[in-house]
Amino acid sequence: MKPIYLDNSATTQVVPEVLEAMKPYFTEKYGNPSSTHFMGMEAQKTLDDCKETIANSIGAEREEIIFTSGGTESNNIAILGCANALKKKGKHVITTKIEHQSVLEPFRALERNGFRVTYLPVGKEGFVSTNSLEKAITRETVFASIQNANHEIGTIQDMAEIGRICSGKGVILHVDGCQGFTKIPIDVSRMGIDMLTLNSHKIHGPKGIGALYARSGTRLEKIYGGGEQGNDIRPGTENVPGAAGFSRAAELASRNPGRDVRRMQTLRDRLAKGLLKIRDSMLNGPKDRRLCSNVNITFRGAEAEAALVALSSKGICASSGSACTSRSVQPSNVLTAIGLSQKEAFSTLRFTLSRLNTAEEVDYAIEAASDIVSGLRKLAAR
Amino acid sequence: MKPIYLDNSATTQVVPEVLEAMKPYFTEKYGNPSSTHFMGMEAQKTLDDCKETIANSIGAEREEIIFTSGGTESNNIAILGCANALKKKGKHVITTKIEHQSVLEPFRALERNGFRVTYLPVGKEGFVSTNSLEKAITRETVFASIQNANHEIGTIQDMAEIGRICSGKGVILHVDGCQGFTKIPIDVSRMGIDMLTLNSHKIHGPKGIGALYARSGTRLEKIYGGGEQGNDIRPGTENVPGAAGFSRAAELASRNPGRDVRRMQTLRDRLAKGLLKIRDSMLNGPKDRRLCSNVNITFRGAEAEAALVALSSKGICASSGSACTSRSVQPSNVLTAIGLSQKEAFSTLRFTLSRLNTAEEVDYAIEAASDIVSGLRKLAAR
Repeated sequence: MKPIYLDNSATTQVVPEVLEAMKPYFTEKYGNPSSTHFMGMEAQKTLDDCKETIANSIGAEREEIIFTSGGTESNNIAILGCANALKKKGKHVITTKIEHQSVLEPFRALERNGFRVTYLPVGKEGFVSTNSLEKAITRETVFASIQNANHEIGTIQDMAEIGRICSGKGVILHVDGCQGFTKIPIDVSRMGIDMLTLNSHKIHGPKGIGALYARSGTRLEKIYGGGEQGNDIRPGTENVPGAAGFSRAAELASRNPGRDVRRMQTLRDRLAKGLLKIRDSMLNGPKDRRLCSNVNITFRGAEAEAALVALSSKGICASSGSACTSRSVQPSNVLTAIGLSQKEAFSTLRFTLSRLNTAEEVDYAIEAASDIVSGLRKLAAR
Repeated sequence: MKPIYLDNSATTQVVPEVLEAMKPYFTEKYGNPSSTHFMGMEAQKTLDDCKETIANSIGAEREEIIFTSGGTESNNIAILGCANALKKKGKHVITTKIEHQSVLEPFRALERNGFRVTYLPVGKEGFVSTNSLEKAITRETVFASIQNANHEIGTIQDMAEIGRICSGKGVILHVDGCQGFTKIPIDVSRMGIDMLTLNSHKIHGPKGIGALYARSGTRLEKIYGGGEQGNDIRPGTENVPGAAGFSRAAELASRNPGRDVRRMQTLRDRLAKGLLKIRDSMLNGPKDRRLCSNVNITFRGAEAEAALVALSSKGICASSGSACTSRSVQPSNVLTAIGLSQKEAFSTLRFTLSRLNTAEEVDYAIEAASDIVSGLRKLAAR
């Protein structure tokens, strides 16, 4: 049976067109872009074309794109690289309480190295108050990292306003765009974004490749060293087939983004409506300004891990939060930040869509979840 | 025309069996190993199987393998991670003058952070004197990184003896095994190797994935943070298709390593013999204890970059050194360390074989190189 895959914020299926785009770079055009012969030049040309495609999708220039191994590495290069480059200017940096671990961990590393970090709180729906951002900025503030869309509850921040505040006060702004890329419009120039993390495997591209946009002139220190690849910021032989797959995935997603997004929104609303018919359930995150792909619901009195196992046995893939923290026994930092109790956080499921999902899948998932939640509650009541 | 690809130390062709092994993990078994549902468990099982295959090929245990984005990242995690974890124990570390940039650069970073670094010299053929290693070790020495085979001149070090010295004195030994993997036997237990860097794209596997073996109990600090993947040392969603390709490539190479190595040795000797018939030429590196794939020759009075362009126009891919430093205008650190003048270093070509090369290709390259070197010398003499 085909899986009912509703965990697209964890990772996505590589679509056949993406695999086709990668193939020649494995077996025929396999040169190392740093080599000076014709096969190296061909590989370098491919890399440049891929950078151009990705740059075009966010309003940037080709030279401003650096390929990395994924979102985690891009976030670390941006945060550690920029803060360390600017530490003589000031040692105050800003982020939010609802960022992904790959943003929070480098900030914790900065704290251990003498930086002062402000973790901005968010409201009940996950929105950062632009007022609190403005107040947090001091003369010592050099850098801020704020995601454009949340990985657990789908909240879409007002990036244009956040960008306006940061650039107005001379604070370098990094945006973790892993979840939002191709699903919400982004224009780094118009929005005042200095650095942007992008990821391939969340948009039907291959795992093992991501990108960092860094505006020309942004000061960055390497986080590790080697050759001079990646604008002398990210060493190591470039993953040419990965870049080809990533850029093809970005192209496919931008063919008709409005249609794909509207389709996902319709499915999202159908899924949320169906699941909220289950009694004692609660939608987390906003109704509007929410990722087209995200449904996050607390089913009080039903243990999420048990529900996931039961869903899985019915062929349904869902999640209780970020896959990257799935081994953790701590409640989600995101759910805690929007005011959920630990008990509520552990009774919360995330369903995340892609453009490949169907209404039939959604209906099947609603039915299965209803049965499972009732069953778990009966068990708990005994 | 099919390229005559003699730059296999820069990167290799992915063989069809490897691509086949990767395919299902792009389009069907695309789960995130950290997810708790059946697709996540399937992905985790695949990762574990791949680790097992790679562990078996070096005499290690599955739990001791960490996947990374490639050799550069593995080297950095080993060197920065271990030195930083042990800095309270001592701040003296050892490496050699002929390492790859992805080893030398993290050592330079350690120097900037207050470590004392000994760069061991090598003899004319590139061998590290085990005597000088023994003498360099003091009570402050915590860590050494010594490659088993050189990327430019093919020198194979006496790892068993180096391992014996390091473990005898309680010094953690890291080995950059990128060039030697599958070409020279390695057994981490028998050779006293605590950490070993392995790379996929040098052995007909995909780019964008490598591994670090770290003996159980080896103390390592993360070089960047995020989720708890990669033994809580290397965060980020694991590259499952990459791992599947890498482990398949390792399997293929170990099917009949003796036959492949002897075949390459024969071709290597044929190529070296043919090229050394060109007058005023000189083989760099040893005759014995040399990588089966490596030929490195100085053609006095013939400028290497011009020769490479001319070879490229005849369909031949070769190199003037490491691809990772091909944009550098400095002479190779390896060639300088074995005593070549700057002029000689800039007149040196590297031809590197794989098990896919043929005698016809070698003969064609010899003929082309002879013509090109004569031509360049005539031009220079005018």
